[in-house]
Amino acid sequence: MILIEDNRAPNPRRVRIFLAEKGIEVERRHLDIMVEEHKTPDMVKRNPFMRIPVLELDDGTCIAEAMAICRYFEALHPEPALFGETPVDIGMIDMWQRRIELQLMHPIAYAFRHAHPKMAHLEQPQIKQWSEVNVGRVEAMLEFLNGELASRQFIAGDRFSVADIDALCAVDFMRVARVAMNDEHTQLRRWHDEVSARPSAVA
Amino acid sequence: MILIEDNRAPNPRRVRIFLAEKGIEVERRHLDIMVEEHKTPDMVKRNPFMRIPVLELDDGTCIAEAMAICRYFEALHPEPALFGETPVDIGMIDMWQRRIELQLMHPIAYAFRHAHPKMAHLEQPQIKQWSEVNVGRVEAMLEFLNGELASRQFIAGDRFSVADIDALCAVDFMRVARVAMNDEHTQLRRWHDEVSARPSAVA
Repeated sequence: MILIEDNRAPNPRRVRIFLAEKGIEVERRHLDIMVEEHKTPDMVKRNPFMRIPVLELDDGTCIAEAMAICRYFEALHPEPALFGETPVDIGMIDMWQRRIELQLMHPIAYAFRHAHPKMAHLEQPQIKQWSEVNVGRVEAMLEFLNGELASRQFIAGDRFSVADIDALCAVDFMRVARVAMNDEHTQLRRWHDEVSARPSAVA
Repeated sequence: MILIEDNRAPNPRRVRIFLAEKGIEVERRHLDIMVEEHKTPDMVKRNPFMRIPVLELDDGTCIAEAMAICRYFEALHPEPALFGETPVDIGMIDMWQRRIELQLMHPIAYAFRHAHPKMAHLEQPQIKQWSEVNVGRVEAMLEFLNGELASRQFIAGDRFSVADIDALCAVDFMRVARVAMNDEHTQLRRWHDEVSARPSAVA
């Protein structure tokens, strides 16, 4: 199998950190999305939505979507469980993974893609007002997460999970949207320092 | 446990159809989101994002997010498997569930919420141009799905899955965004007729 990805975007990084936490090695091929290598006919066949990462299996089956790729590997290699083990943990981790994705990753992506000149060829039309609305949503979510992290070590509870992977990739991607943690986000910074210190974070 | 939901929105319907397919009965409480019953202090405690459905367990634990609730029930009652059984099926169903959610449900919601006068109190500010962009995305996705469904019975393959539940709830919610299947969407209509004929669809 081969993982088709790039080195700069947050979605491939979600998969790289997940694999590093599991101790799984996978062959990789890098594309450069800035010169639209993800839009070639070969890539459209692999993923008609022209997004990476894509995991191509030996029989040609292609799994797109970062979290879908992670779920495939979780089913193959259950330990350590990053999507939870008990029904309640599975539900709570999925809830937090979704909250991070929908309330933090997506707003960051919208804030960035609808404002940055370099994104004009990828996001048509760019809508400045939609970018601005989403900057506000990112700031509100940082404030919310800072409050939540006062009572527990990780995003979804007392164990590291995919929700932490997504939140780390999101927070580290915020600079492109020109949003940052502020000095009062002490709990969020404590969490960010901890997850950034894990060996998987360099992936 | 109790499922807190409403009767009109698509997200609670995703859970109802999922439970009907599993044959699971759960006590329910209905809220009316048009008069903001989901924004009371009690509901904010259950879900700070003030969205439904929310599943409240007997110990007070609250699981929000429709798919997270479904995953909790899938872990409790694995049969019939609606998120897949083998690693490849699990990955492919998650990929299709996400494609339906991100490329169909979200665009429908944006098209509706950013244009309809009745949504003005829920979506601030409403951005007409963002609604229009998303109408185009919904139409493109219908066209794409129609092509995909020429080669298989269900959204993610030859078995009914959560991807079908999401797609059914999305397609049935399109009228609020004033988008519809056209006469050339013969495969999509064939699929829609089939999944609508399942007993779970009335949920």
